[in-house]
Amino acid sequence: MRFLLLLVGLSLSLTGRAQNGVVVFQTDFGLKDGAVAAMKGVALGVSTDLKLYDLTHEIPAYNIWDAAYRLYQTASYYPKGTVFVSVCDPGVGTNRRSVVMLSESGHYFVTPDNGTLTLVAEQLGVRELRQIDETTNRLPGSQASYTFHGRDVYAYTAARLAAKAISYEQVGPKLTNEVVRLPYQKAELSKGVLKGNIPALDVQYGNVWTNIPKELVDQLPAKAGQKLNVQIFQGNRLVYSKAVTLVNTFGEAAVGSDVAYFNSLLNFSVAINMGDFAKTYNVTSGADWRVTVKP
Amino acid sequence: MRFLLLLVGLSLSLTGRAQNGVVVFQTDFGLKDGAVAAMKGVALGVSTDLKLYDLTHEIPAYNIWDAAYRLYQTASYYPKGTVFVSVCDPGVGTNRRSVVMLSESGHYFVTPDNGTLTLVAEQLGVRELRQIDETTNRLPGSQASYTFHGRDVYAYTAARLAAKAISYEQVGPKLTNEVVRLPYQKAELSKGVLKGNIPALDVQYGNVWTNIPKELVDQLPAKAGQKLNVQIFQGNRLVYSKAVTLVNTFGEAAVGSDVAYFNSLLNFSVAINMGDFAKTYNVTSGADWRVTVKP
Amino acid sequence: MRFLLLLVGLSLSLTGRAQNGVVVFQTDFGLKDGAVAAMKGVALGVSTDLKLYDLTHEIPAYNIWDAAYRLYQTASYYPKGTVFVSVCDPGVGTNRRSVVMLSESGHYFVTPDNGTLTLVAEQLGVRELRQIDETTNRLPGSQASYTFHGRDVYAYTAARLAAKAISYEQVGPKLTNEVVRLPYQKAELSKGVLKGNIPALDVQYGNVWTNIPKELVDQLPAKAGQKLNVQIFQGNRLVYSKAVTLVNTFGEAAVGSDVAYFNSLLNFSVAINMGDFAKTYNVTSGADWRVTVKP
Repeated sequence: MRFLLLLVGLSLSLTGRAQNGVVVFQTDFGLKDGAVAAMKGVALGVSTDLKLYDLTHEIPAYNIWDAAYRLYQTASYYPKGTVFVSVCDPGVGTNRRSVVMLSESGHYFVTPDNGTLTLVAEQLGVRELRQIDETTNRLPGSQASYTFHGRDVYAYTAARLAAKAISYEQVGPKLTNEVVRLPYQKAELSKGVLKGNIPALDVQYGNVWTNIPKELVDQLPAKAGQKLNVQIFQGNRLVYSKAVTLVNTFGEAAVGSDVAYFNSLLNFSVAINMGDFAKTYNVTSGADWRVTVKP
Repeated sequence: MRFLLLLVGLSLSLTGRAQNGVVVFQTDFGLKDGAVAAMKGVALGVSTDLKLYDLTHEIPAYNIWDAAYRLYQTASYYPKGTVFVSVCDPGVGTNRRSVVMLSESGHYFVTPDNGTLTLVAEQLGVRELRQIDETTNRLPGSQASYTFHGRDVYAYTAARLAAKAISYEQVGPKLTNEVVRLPYQKAELSKGVLKGNIPALDVQYGNVWTNIPKELVDQLPAKAGQKLNVQIFQGNRLVYSKAVTLVNTFGEAAVGSDVAYFNSLLNFSVAINMGDFAKTYNVTSGADWRVTVKP
Repeated sequence: MRFLLLLVGLSLSLTGRAQNGVVVFQTDFGLKDGAVAAMKGVALGVSTDLKLYDLTHEIPAYNIWDAAYRLYQTASYYPKGTVFVSVCDPGVGTNRRSVVMLSESGHYFVTPDNGTLTLVAEQLGVRELRQIDETTNRLPGSQASYTFHGRDVYAYTAARLAAKAISYEQVGPKLTNEVVRLPYQKAELSKGVLKGNIPALDVQYGNVWTNIPKELVDQLPAKAGQKLNVQIFQGNRLVYSKAVTLVNTFGEAAVGSDVAYFNSLLNFSVAINMGDFAKTYNVTSGADWRVTVKP
C-alpha cells in the first residue's frame, strides 16, 4: 500500500499534475452580493479541506481582456497544481465552450473559452485542453438554471478537480490545444523603435504598464538615468508624447515628475512619482492601446 | 474509545448537527478598517484550524433586509454544519436578542434577532433557536465594552461553536422557534396576475431580481419567447411598465433590449442585455418594492 | 526523537515565539488588480498549509499612519505567533530598512520600518527587531526586480517564517529595539482638560475615534448621561465645538443627535446617531488632528 502511494506520488510529480487543494477565484461579480460566496459554498460542499482564495472580483463587467491580464499577472506565482476559476462571461448561455486548461507549468484554469486564456496560454504554455462535460460535471439539482454557470459548473468542477474527486481526464473530452485568443500589439523592437501594448493599469496608483519586457529595453539599448521618448496611442489617436527618464526606483526621481520604470513583472511602465499618470493624461488599458519608445 | 467516537459520529450525522469547522462572516462594516479583521482574530484565537470565509461586508449600513437576503442567496449552497455570523445591527446596545438559529437544513446562524433571519427561517426552516448567554459566551476581558458585539460575542461564540469548544446547547437557553420577521409582499399568483417583491438587485450588473419562482411563472402560464407585461412599484408609485420578452439566455436577445429571465435562484428577473436596468429606470430593492407580471 | 520534540515544544511555549501558521496581509494596493493575489501565491508556494487572511488592502495610498493604526486596532486580537505583513511603502527602493519586529505579545510584523510600527510598538512592546537579510530572504529569481518588495521580500519572508522554513534569527541581523515612530498628540489629562489625537475614523459609519482611553475619561471625571464640551482641531484650526452627551449605547440617544461614546477599543469617540459625523463636520484623521474634552 505504502509502495503504491509512493508510485502514485512519483508519477504525479513526474507529470506535474498533482492538484494541491488550492482553488483561486476570479470574477467580474464584485463582492457586494452573494454570488462569489455561493460559488465558495458549492466548493466547500465538495470538500471543506479545500483552501479557497481570491484573485480579484473587481474585473470590470464583461472585460475579458482584464480577466486575461490578471491571470497572467499572478498565476505563475502560485505552486503547481493550483486550480484557477475565472468567470467573466458575457456570452453565458450562448455556445462558447467551457474548458479546463492544464498549462505546461502545471496550473489548471477553469473558464469559459472566450479569450480569458489568451495571455496565460502564451506565458505558461498549453499542455492540454479539455471541454467540461456538463452532463457529469454540474452541481446536482442545478440543471434547471440557465444563468449561473460560475457556481453550478465552474466552481463545482474546479472544486472536484482540486479535491481529486475527479481526475483531469474526467473533466471531459480532450480538445486541440488552441484556445480562443484576443488580438493585441505584441512587444517588438524594430528599426530602433520599441512597440507594445498597455495590458493594464496599476489601478491603485494610476501607473501605466506595458507588455514590453526589460530584455527588449536593454537591447534598444537603454539604461537607468537615460531619457526616452514615449508615445501612447489609442488606436491611431496620439494621447501622450514626452521624453521621460528611466529610473531604477521612484526614490531617485522628483515628486511630481513623469518617470519610466520596470514594474514587478519587469515590464516597461510609466508613472508620475507620487501622482496618477493614467488620470492626468487620460490613459486606460486594453487591446486597442499601444505604446512606442525611442531613445 | 474508538467505539465511542463511532457512536458520537453516528449520532451527529443522524441529527445533522455536526459543525464542520467553516465560519462565514457577513457584516455592514466594509473592509476599509480593521473591524472584520478583529473579528477573525478572535475566531482564530479560539482555533487556528477554523476555516474562515466571507459572505460580504458590503451590506449597506443598517440595511437588515439586505443582510437577510444575502443569507437567503447563499446559505443553502454551504455544507451542513457551516456557522454563519451576520452583524448588521442598528439596535446594538438596545435589548434586541442575540441568538443562534439552527435551521432544518443543519446550518447555524449567529446574529442579532432583528429581522436578519426572516428569509432563511422561511427557506431553510427553524429546527431550534437559542439565545446567546453573554455571561459565558463572551470574549474574556471584553466585559467593559458596550459597542462591539460583533467581535466580542458573535465572532467569539460562532468560533467556539464551529470549533466544538461549546455544544449548541451551551450557546444559551432555548427559545420558541419564532424569529423576528420583516414584512414584505410574498410571491403569489391570483386571477392571472403574478405579484412579488424585489428583494435585491444584481448590483454588479444592475439587473432586478424578484422573489417570484419559476414554478409560479410556469403556472401563469408563460414560457421563453413570450412577451410579458411587467409593472414595478415602490409603495403605490408606478416606476416601470413595459412588455418584455422572457428569454432563456441573454445571448438570445438584442444588446440594449429589456428582457425577463430566471436568475441563478430560478426567480423571475428583469434586465437590459449588456446594460444597467436598475440605474436606467431608477429601481432599487427592499421590502417596499413590488412587481406585477401579466401575459 | 519524541522527547526532543517535546523539549522544542516546551521551549517555544516558554518564549512565546512559536509561529502558528497564520499570515495576515495588509497593503495599500486595493483588490482591483493582482498584486495581493501574487503575494499570496508566493506564500502558498512556500507552504499550502499556511492560513492566509487579510487585514485590509484599502489603506489610503502612501498613508503610513493609517497602516500603523489598523495594526493597532487588530493585532492584539490574533493569537500569539501570527505573522502580519504590512506593505504601505512610499519609500520603496530608497534605503529604508526592511524589518521583522517580534512584539512582547508574541506577534511578528514584517514591514518597511517607515513608521508603520509606531502604534503596535507602543501597545504591544518590542521584544526584538531584526533587519531582513535580502540576500537570503528573497524569492529566488526575483533579484532583477526593483519594485515589488511586497511580493518578493515581505510575503516570501513572512511565509517562510510562518511555515518555520526559517527561524526568527534567520530573518537577519538583530537591531536595537528602536523602530521609526511618527509623532502625534498622546492622550493626556492635564488641569481638568483631556487632550488626544484622532487616529482613525470608523469609515463605514462616519464616527470619529480618539486615542483617549476610558480610564482617562473616568478620571476627568465623567460618566454616562453627562454633557461634555468637545473641541476638534486640525493643527491650530478649530473645526468643531459642541456640548455632547456621553452614552453607553446609541440606543439611548435620539436619532440624529451628536453623542460621545466608547468605541470597541474603549476609546472616547463621537458620532451622530444613525448619521455621519465625519462628513457632516468635515473631520478626518491623522497625526495632525487633535481633540480636547472638558466637563
